Amino acid sequence: MIERFHPEGVPAPVVPLSTATKAGDFVFVSGQVATDAENKVYIGDFTREVDGALDNVEAALAAAGARPDQIVKIGAFLSNAILFAPFNEVYRRRFPEAPPARTTVVVAFGHPDVRVEIEAIAYVG
Amino acid sequence: MIERFHPEGVPAPVVPLSTATKAGDFVFVSGQVATDAENKVYIGDFTREVDGALDNVEAALAAAGARPDQIVKIGAFLSNAILFAPFNEVYRRRFPEAPPARTTVVVAFGHPDVRVEIEAIAYVG
Amino acid sequence: MIERFHPEGVPAPVVPLSTATKAGDFVFVSGQVATDAENKVYIGDFTREVDGALDNVEAALAAAGARPDQIVKIGAFLSNAILFAPFNEVYRRRFPEAPPARTTVVVAFGHPDVRVEIEAIAYVG
Repeated sequence: MIERFHPEGVPAPVVPLSTATKAGDFVFVSGQVATDAENKVYIGDFTREVDGALDNVEAALAAAGARPDQIVKIGAFLSNAILFAPFNEVYRRRFPEAPPARTTVVVAFGHPDVRVEIEAIAYVG
Repeated sequence: MIERFHPEGVPAPVVPLSTATKAGDFVFVSGQVATDAENKVYIGDFTREVDGALDNVEAALAAAGARPDQIVKIGAFLSNAILFAPFNEVYRRRFPEAPPARTTVVVAFGHPDVRVEIEAIAYVG
Repeated sequence: MIERFHPEGVPAPVVPLSTATKAGDFVFVSGQVATDAENKVYIGDFTREVDGALDNVEAALAAAGARPDQIVKIGAFLSNAILFAPFNEVYRRRFPEAPPARTTVVVAFGHPDVRVEIEAIAYVG
């Protein structure tokens, strides 16, 4: 059985995707960007943007009944190579020990103000 | 046991990859682009290109015994941010309800005429 | 249970990630680049760079108790479309038969001299 999840209290995605899916013992979280109080793309300080993207990953996991320490793989996307250092600084604070496997590359996004997008796979077995 | 699949009636990939692999309850589909009747890269209308890439994802799934509604995660790659809107229009038609989790970013491809490539993970448990 | 692995005899990653994680019957390997004898980014011949990245993927798998023939999905990232041909030449030698599913796209990296990064999912069930 495949289950699909969307965090409560957040508007449904405008794009055709499930925020998270659960299949067997694995949860797959769609690429998340930071959002503001009106659920629009957050524009501002990069540290807050990274925290906001990770907050949305955690909210998606929570909707599927998973915890951050159950993440086994992160896919991270940055808009510019210069962001690796500040990204890792925030990320290290969020995963102070036993971090997931991770791949991080530089791409472009659909929205011109997005600088970081993060997807995740968690294991709830 | 790991099984490898390639759709019947289609020439074997020129690059060293299996079109789909099955491991446990999961099927992994290689990034698919649209192809024409001679199995070359399709060049033409973008809507047809998106449909063609999704057709090839579905053919790969079918070869592995999986259905489109069993897709739990899509990775989509576009060549230009301007393509997000027309991509989502086709995609929504193909996944009218209960869509998979999805991450979509802008990258470049090995072939200069490709504008969309799509990979998938399905759950057949 | 989730297990995390790092190859023996190699300095711990400077970035906050586990080189490999194991969850259920799957092993997830972080994006690997080629490294030199001092574990710095390898700079030089591209063929050696591809082999070096794949060597590091295999070392990560070995640390988690997995073999190269158990890889079911590869994500490969190149810095330039012109590298597809030489990349496939090395890759075909490394996976002469029954290759994994694979997606390969062109992105940018955090280090200016990296031309290839490779992540993997293996099945050890």
